Amino acid sequence: MTTLATSPVLDAHPRASIDEQDRRQASVDRSGYVPETYADGVIFAQDIDDVVLAMKLAHEHGAIIVPRGAGTGLAAGSSAQAGQIVLDLSRMDKILQIDPVEATAVVQPGVINAAVNHAAGEHGLFYAPDPASTAICSIGGNIATNAGGMWCAKYGVTRESVLSLLVVLPDGQLLRTGRRTIKGVAGYDMNALMIGSEGTLGIVVEALLRLRPKPKHTSTLVAYFPDENAAAKAASAVIAERLTPSVLELMCGKTLKAVDATLGTDHQSRGGALLLAQTDGYGAHLEMQALQEAIAPLAGHIEIARDEAQAQALIEARRQAIPSMELLGTASICDIGVPRHRLAEAFAGLQRIEDERGVSIFTIAHAADGNLHPIIVVPEGQSITSGAPKAALGDMFHLAQLLGGTLTGEHGIGLLKQDWLAEELGETSLALQRRLRAVFDPRGILNPGKAI
Amino acid sequence: MTTLATSPVLDAHPRASIDEQDRRQASVDRSGYVPETYADGVIFAQDIDDVVLAMKLAHEHGAIIVPRGAGTGLAAGSSAQAGQIVLDLSRMDKILQIDPVEATAVVQPGVINAAVNHAAGEHGLFYAPDPASTAICSIGGNIATNAGGMWCAKYGVTRESVLSLLVVLPDGQLLRTGRRTIKGVAGYDMNALMIGSEGTLGIVVEALLRLRPKPKHTSTLVAYFPDENAAAKAASAVIAERLTPSVLELMCGKTLKAVDATLGTDHQSRGGALLLAQTDGYGAHLEMQALQEAIAPLAGHIEIARDEAQAQALIEARRQAIPSMELLGTASICDIGVPRHRLAEAFAGLQRIEDERGVSIFTIAHAADGNLHPIIVVPEGQSITSGAPKAALGDMFHLAQLLGGTLTGEHGIGLLKQDWLAEELGETSLALQRRLRAVFDPRGILNPGKAI
Repeated sequence: MTTLATSPVLDAHPRASIDEQDRRQASVDRSGYVPETYADGVIFAQDIDDVVLAMKLAHEHGAIIVPRGAGTGLAAGSSAQAGQIVLDLSRMDKILQIDPVEATAVVQPGVINAAVNHAAGEHGLFYAPDPASTAICSIGGNIATNAGGMWCAKYGVTRESVLSLLVVLPDGQLLRTGRRTIKGVAGYDMNALMIGSEGTLGIVVEALLRLRPKPKHTSTLVAYFPDENAAAKAASAVIAERLTPSVLELMCGKTLKAVDATLGTDHQSRGGALLLAQTDGYGAHLEMQALQEAIAPLAGHIEIARDEAQAQALIEARRQAIPSMELLGTASICDIGVPRHRLAEAFAGLQRIEDERGVSIFTIAHAADGNLHPIIVVPEGQSITSGAPKAALGDMFHLAQLLGGTLTGEHGIGLLKQDWLAEELGETSLALQRRLRAVFDPRGILNPGKAI
Repeated sequence: MTTLATSPVLDAHPRASIDEQDRRQASVDRSGYVPETYADGVIFAQDIDDVVLAMKLAHEHGAIIVPRGAGTGLAAGSSAQAGQIVLDLSRMDKILQIDPVEATAVVQPGVINAAVNHAAGEHGLFYAPDPASTAICSIGGNIATNAGGMWCAKYGVTRESVLSLLVVLPDGQLLRTGRRTIKGVAGYDMNALMIGSEGTLGIVVEALLRLRPKPKHTSTLVAYFPDENAAAKAASAVIAERLTPSVLELMCGKTLKAVDATLGTDHQSRGGALLLAQTDGYGAHLEMQALQEAIAPLAGHIEIARDEAQAQALIEARRQAIPSMELLGTASICDIGVPRHRLAEAFAGLQRIEDERGVSIFTIAHAADGNLHPIIVVPEGQSITSGAPKAALGDMFHLAQLLGGTLTGEHGIGLLKQDWLAEELGETSLALQRRLRAVFDPRGILNPGKAI
């Protein structure tokens, strides 16, 4: 076992562990980033008091705390190293209340995204932000990254589905943000400031979520195209036609191959790229008809799901895209965003990067939002955070910038994207944001080096 | 003419006016609040450079600046007094660009809300936040208050329709917030922080707005009920039935009387309260059928608009509600929010306040958001900001708090609601927000005394 620095915080907290396996597991996320050392210890919080105590102790001793949900982050936002203590929220995983009349839920941060959706579904409701990792990611992590997902095309991201938060500040004080009502403008938007702040401003210990009416009608379509260029143009045509699908996902040819290998399907035989679309609401079928007309000139083959089971199978293919790539090696999931009408240019740029850097890039996209996930896969054991993969990541960011886009649509900055952040935000904004952070965390003890 | 304090800012700025009428007009908004003195002068900005120069001079000399759009605010957020200089943005009123493919608009802050909608409409698009004052309010003011409106029921408030802002900071530096893409999580949500900050953190000089597809189909209904209680229960039934109308407006019996007097209509003869509902999208008519079924048990009489002209007439009745009251005297427009299933309790509470305080209260509500506008009307010449009207305002706030709601859904705090802000936010949050404000404006020169 590694020799540990003495930590008065770990000594004093009843939920602390310095077990080597706990420390190792708590120090990595799913970004592919491997820290050189591991955290000094892990505090497994079971309630709000545990979090308050942890922060009071940390504040007193100047100890560094890295908050952690389910550890499914893709930007090393919750990775930790020696000299740091992980505050694990995964055991605070209860749904405290569902209000079926008001269509809200009160949850703890460690609850799994899919569990909220399951509970909401019993009341004809759903929770809109649905990352591909819905089965394993936590609501607290979703809030920390302002997570998106497929349904964001129509229903917005986490920010649009969180009404209020209870937060433990870096000095252990409790802060309530937002409100119980749909609208409200008393004071600054502290709720939005907290959402997407990657656990650098405070630790969410309770969230009031907005649920949405579960659509009574949906229609699901899959269209195959000769290549990504045609599929991207079709996605842009959907937007230009003023349609509002609830799902509009693009998968590249290489991704189809990987998914086929995992699920035993044969998407590849039908085209070189795929578009998955869903419409919902009372006009789902009519809107799908219009969508079909918009993409038909570009599509090779179109299938409309006959029933819910077939629709679910199509959506499952999309959900299995990343796990399928992970079977092929180590994956680094990039997350650029571009204006929606520039999707085809983004795909062309990614092809150039693949050729020039000699890396293998699989791309899936939330096409209605212009949010692409180009995924670099290297053979197991090779580094994904240096050399050609890192250079390719940089190229992708510059491609997004060139197209008027952003470094990250929904995964966050974490440690992995620090190098390019100043270029996107500019020095004025970054300096201002650092001063804002210091208002919350003057001692710099909460997740340093992440977010900004 | 009043003797003026010497102002090096007014002396040095080429767009400054110390004309008495300019000063008087620039010192009041539409809240009913009348300042005891008027601003020292007005700077009529024509471009970004004018704003930058004004803030650089103000920063240098420690002069106080009150930013102003169209002056239609309802919380005295842009009212000014002696010792302050108004920075008027109303001449920066251009639509700089509409991108019909991406569905965005770049506008200056002084542009009128309805003008954006008109320009967007030519491309089959619309701008969702539509305050009742759409014909006279500016986008800059909408951003300062995070304005709502009727369509927010389905499309969200200003925050959900502003992608990026160009802001002049209190020291004259330029800051870009947000991004050109629909999604993005690089850095903190500075865009949301700026929206609703009532011009206390910076001055918006350009905005990138998100436009929405104009619905190809709508259905509009008006239902009459015996009283407000029944109408409020019907509105809650619409939410409980998992319907998502694009408009759901409630008008009380007294409001119907005022509107009838102004427009020559006869709503009152058909009921003691009214609910106006619109559904949109490919399933507009089917969803309206479901809505009708949900409210039918409570309604006395229901009419569905036969065509667009009749729908517009119904919507116009709602738009004329506040102007109609203003013909009866001086109006103070309150703006509480409550959870959506507690609307009926809110109406009962307002009735009690009316009885106990002996004031006349007209109420209209954005019912799908639980956002009520109880409007106190006093005879012309009587004070609306002291005595019984002020006491009634305090009662309304406490009523909202009691029902788990908020002091203000969409109008803001301004000067008028300062007394109750700490009670809603709590000292921890308020202190934190004051420190955040100081990061942007360490000298306290931007709209002091407003917002927080």
